[in-house]
Amino acid sequence: MAQVCLTLQYDGTQYHGWQVQPNGVTVQQVLQDAIQTVTGIRASVTGCSRTDSGVHARHFYCTTVLPERFPPEQFVKALNANLPRDIVVSACVPVEEDFHPRYSAVKKRYVYYIWNGAVRNPFWEKYSLHHRNKLDEKSMNETASLFVGTYDFSAFCSSASEVQDKVRTIYRADVLRDGDLICFTIEGNGFLYNMVRIIVGTILEVETGKLSRQTVYQALTSGNRQHAGLTSPACGLFLDEVFYTH
Amino acid sequence: MAQVCLTLQYDGTQYHGWQVQPNGVTVQQVLQDAIQTVTGIRASVTGCSRTDSGVHARHFYCTTVLPERFPPEQFVKALNANLPRDIVVSACVPVEEDFHPRYSAVKKRYVYYIWNGAVRNPFWEKYSLHHRNKLDEKSMNETASLFVGTYDFSAFCSSASEVQDKVRTIYRADVLRDGDLICFTIEGNGFLYNMVRIIVGTILEVETGKLSRQTVYQALTSGNRQHAGLTSPACGLFLDEVFYTH
Repeated sequence: MAQVCLTLQYDGTQYHGWQVQPNGVTVQQVLQDAIQTVTGIRASVTGCSRTDSGVHARHFYCTTVLPERFPPEQFVKALNANLPRDIVVSACVPVEEDFHPRYSAVKKRYVYYIWNGAVRNPFWEKYSLHHRNKLDEKSMNETASLFVGTYDFSAFCSSASEVQDKVRTIYRADVLRDGDLICFTIEGNGFLYNMVRIIVGTILEVETGKLSRQTVYQALTSGNRQHAGLTSPACGLFLDEVFYTH
Repeated sequence: MAQVCLTLQYDGTQYHGWQVQPNGVTVQQVLQDAIQTVTGIRASVTGCSRTDSGVHARHFYCTTVLPERFPPEQFVKALNANLPRDIVVSACVPVEEDFHPRYSAVKKRYVYYIWNGAVRNPFWEKYSLHHRNKLDEKSMNETASLFVGTYDFSAFCSSASEVQDKVRTIYRADVLRDGDLICFTIEGNGFLYNMVRIIVGTILEVETGKLSRQTVYQALTSGNRQHAGLTSPACGLFLDEVFYTH
């Protein structure tokens, strides 16, 4: 048996997130089932992130063990033939035993889409938050830039989180508009539970006048969840990339 | 009552095409139901095209009658509140009584997407044909250009068609690549049943060596369906725009 790292892409709409759980189908479970069908072995799979229910992934990395007799390329084909159409394995590479998809990661990039048209867009329905009133992307960008730096992100974390150290460094946070589509990109050395979705909710509340930038800055320095915005819906969020080298 | 023209966008995946039919839910039926809920009247709706089962639309025009008391803008909002998430009304404008969404059209544009990656893309799964082997878009473009002009398109028409005159003029037919996504765009004064899907199937068969460009040209001049390629799947096809003025 050798350790391999799989790259996945998935549409999270139908899944209760990555991690196996008792109530609801998860990506991890579906993948483990497919691996068992292909290899005959129930191998466990370790993911790079515990994406939430409904969150999508463009590059999700996970490790598992593979019997030596399976060439990685054939394994990818066989897995894809046994996976539903909303989960795809795009690569399989051998990795060292000390490689861990979560702990070896040095940076992650998330993208959040907002459909900012007067009416909904049926093709972006599952992949964006619809915000009807015209948003000012320059102003949003200014708010986004507040998050760049090293802060205790306690205010931008679900109360369900059990993580102790909530200090994270954000390297990039910006907003781009392409027609009616607004794309928020954020890169950091790590993210807390619901962190990106609360940051997006906060940026939107600054635009709608419910929060001021000063309050956002207070949230970053005080760690008070009350100073931050609501959690935006999962459907707009994509785990875009995970980086393992600086 | 005044005649209005509605602009729709829809994800056709779940529908048996536009036109009401006994076996299966259609976009027309769902729209007529929503109109009845909003106005209390069972008004019929006339569409610009009979899109097939599974085909999508970015700009689909249809006419209906609206009681004078409904301002178009409110009608749009009320309709959208009563439509499923895969059908959206993006506009409603009053039109002259002699306006007909199908017969008044002078040009239509269709777009067909091919996902040309080694593995499937879960986000394009419902909106493209997956073609695994690398395609040469320049060569495809050359084949596409054969279709520009006025021809009897009998060879590029489903045998189920009951249309007599099969002469159509194609103004534009080209292929563009954006990464792994190939986009085929075609504009013409009219299209026969399955015409775009058979043209796409034909272009692909030239790429895979099953057909030569000479055979394609023969199909255009002979009208022999045997000289053309297979019908490509509906999911990759979008009715992109309908033009009412030159």
